[in-house]
Amino acid sequence: MSDAQVSRSGTEARPDTGRGGPRPRVTIADVAALAGVSAGTASKALNNRGKLREETRARVAEAARRLGFRPNEMARSLLSGRSFTVGLLTTDHVGRFSLPVLLGAEDALGAGEISVFLCDTRGDAIRERHHLQALASRRVDGIIVAGRRTDPRPPLRQFLDVPVVYAMAPSQRADDLSVAPDEEQGAREAVRHLVAAGRSRIAHITGPARHHSSQVRAAAFRAALAEAGLEPAGGTVLFGEWNEPWGRQAVRHVLHADPRCDAVFCGSDQIARGAADSLRESGHTVPDDIALVGFDNWDVMVTASRPPLTTVDMELGALGRAAAVRLLEAIDGRARPGTEHLPCRLVLRESA
Amino acid sequence: MSDAQVSRSGTEARPDTGRGGPRPRVTIADVAALAGVSAGTASKALNNRGKLREETRARVAEAARRLGFRPNEMARSLLSGRSFTVGLLTTDHVGRFSLPVLLGAEDALGAGEISVFLCDTRGDAIRERHHLQALASRRVDGIIVAGRRTDPRPPLRQFLDVPVVYAMAPSQRADDLSVAPDEEQGAREAVRHLVAAGRSRIAHITGPARHHSSQVRAAAFRAALAEAGLEPAGGTVLFGEWNEPWGRQAVRHVLHADPRCDAVFCGSDQIARGAADSLRESGHTVPDDIALVGFDNWDVMVTASRPPLTTVDMELGALGRAAAVRLLEAIDGRARPGTEHLPCRLVLRESA
Repeated sequence: MSDAQVSRSGTEARPDTGRGGPRPRVTIADVAALAGVSAGTASKALNNRGKLREETRARVAEAARRLGFRPNEMARSLLSGRSFTVGLLTTDHVGRFSLPVLLGAEDALGAGEISVFLCDTRGDAIRERHHLQALASRRVDGIIVAGRRTDPRPPLRQFLDVPVVYAMAPSQRADDLSVAPDEEQGAREAVRHLVAAGRSRIAHITGPARHHSSQVRAAAFRAALAEAGLEPAGGTVLFGEWNEPWGRQAVRHVLHADPRCDAVFCGSDQIARGAADSLRESGHTVPDDIALVGFDNWDVMVTASRPPLTTVDMELGALGRAAAVRLLEAIDGRARPGTEHLPCRLVLRESA
Repeated sequence: MSDAQVSRSGTEARPDTGRGGPRPRVTIADVAALAGVSAGTASKALNNRGKLREETRARVAEAARRLGFRPNEMARSLLSGRSFTVGLLTTDHVGRFSLPVLLGAEDALGAGEISVFLCDTRGDAIRERHHLQALASRRVDGIIVAGRRTDPRPPLRQFLDVPVVYAMAPSQRADDLSVAPDEEQGAREAVRHLVAAGRSRIAHITGPARHHSSQVRAAAFRAALAEAGLEPAGGTVLFGEWNEPWGRQAVRHVLHADPRCDAVFCGSDQIARGAADSLRESGHTVPDDIALVGFDNWDVMVTASRPPLTTVDMELGALGRAAAVRLLEAIDGRARPGTEHLPCRLVLRESA
């Protein structure tokens, strides 16, 4: 391997920082000078404090506008007792599940002029403590804790008295503020879709039995079948891994246990994609012989699969935005304790 | 679809915020009282200012430790003129390329007691301006701009005079501070590996011709072949898309153009996975008949592929950490202008 290469085509020690060069920072003194008032008067005018003539306030505001003066957030914070910042704390591996939640929350908070601190704990207790102390010393107004799985998690050890909203992985304490996907409803809709399409021998292949998501989706699968007077094809739910090799392997078990199986509801898109590959290679046609439904609506999986997958979308961006709304309400003294379950959406493609 | 469901098992309007309830905030006055000094003396001691006896400083430090006192970051900032915050600005779609960069940067900055503001612009000019104004009013000490592609980008329009480091997508201005993967070196190593293994009819299938990554990797492919006295199998590089269907399709073109082709270097893992599927389905064995190398080391692709893919890793986490180091140096007045290219790493698995 070669070493890092640094090409230096400039000679300045300090980079020029934009088109037209750096702008000098405008201060309250500049605004005051342009408006022809004292710095104290300019400050009062911009912060809507003290007794001033309306004409003076207007003159200061106009001067601030002309100079492009931005009030110092830190000074604003010291006056208001709020920092207008929120911590976004990730509790385990950041990836395709927690990222959309983070970005949804960032989107909703940014629109409300709140800035977000990103804190990746990597599931490490020492890192979590480090980040919580940093957030405490930053005087954040609240914290969103985003998990990648839906297993309930222990409440945060708090270093400061601010509201906390748990997104994706709800708090184990029922009166904490949590937002989670309604996996039960999503799985039920998937099975009802298969039943409505005339399928009657439906199997379920899913992830590890110890995962909350596996259990909730499997229970919803059984309930939706029972509702239609049906039994699981092969007699049982197959728990395994969330990956493609398990999907390839499990669908062979299913066909062995019930050769007349006509549909498989898979606990993830990766499992469904593995099942699709295995079925094609063993001469079965999807969906004509066997219909397939996945879970996650993970773009690269559902579109690369042959055929493209019908699947359940947990609407994680909306979930992040809902978490932000709950947090802003709580900061505003209008906390709504409890776990809110947001609906999933069935996305129809070619596999079912 | 069902509506959102809210279960409320608590009755308090405000959630309890942790085990054992909220802790009262410790102030400098509490520390001073315990240490038996004035608040001013306690402040001097904790900020290492003024003339104090060593014994007094130690007593104040011990009192702060015992009370769990955390100095107010905002007050610290007003004194130092630094905010100890950095903006992490994403310029387009946040995903598997920019996320590891962001997390690497967050990791390196957090270790240095710097907090990071996450700003997702979604490639939108209005959002970028909004975020830059917010970062300006927060008085960030610097900004890291993370792209998902390696095409050089226009410099940021700056609202404040702080250092900026461009990660992944370097700035078009050669004397800005940029950190990018050395794709040329990565591609060269991939081809050299195939040549060293005795392959002599090597094809290259890659992404869109308009993408910088496609061009750089294709040029490195040609150069490494020329170095070994070889020509591209099929006579030309096949530009297309970054996805699996293109990989499946392109490998058929390759075998038609040169039936004796014995290796394919693919511009992405998705392309390589598509190629692997297509080869298996047409009766070719990987790597015995045809060796395959991908690019990205994207876990779900390389491990689900049959066989698992040999590929090039751009070490994006290290790239994010390097960007953070460059930024901290620049904040410290030791900017190193220019684009730094960080080495990629060839990861050997079963496909080549």
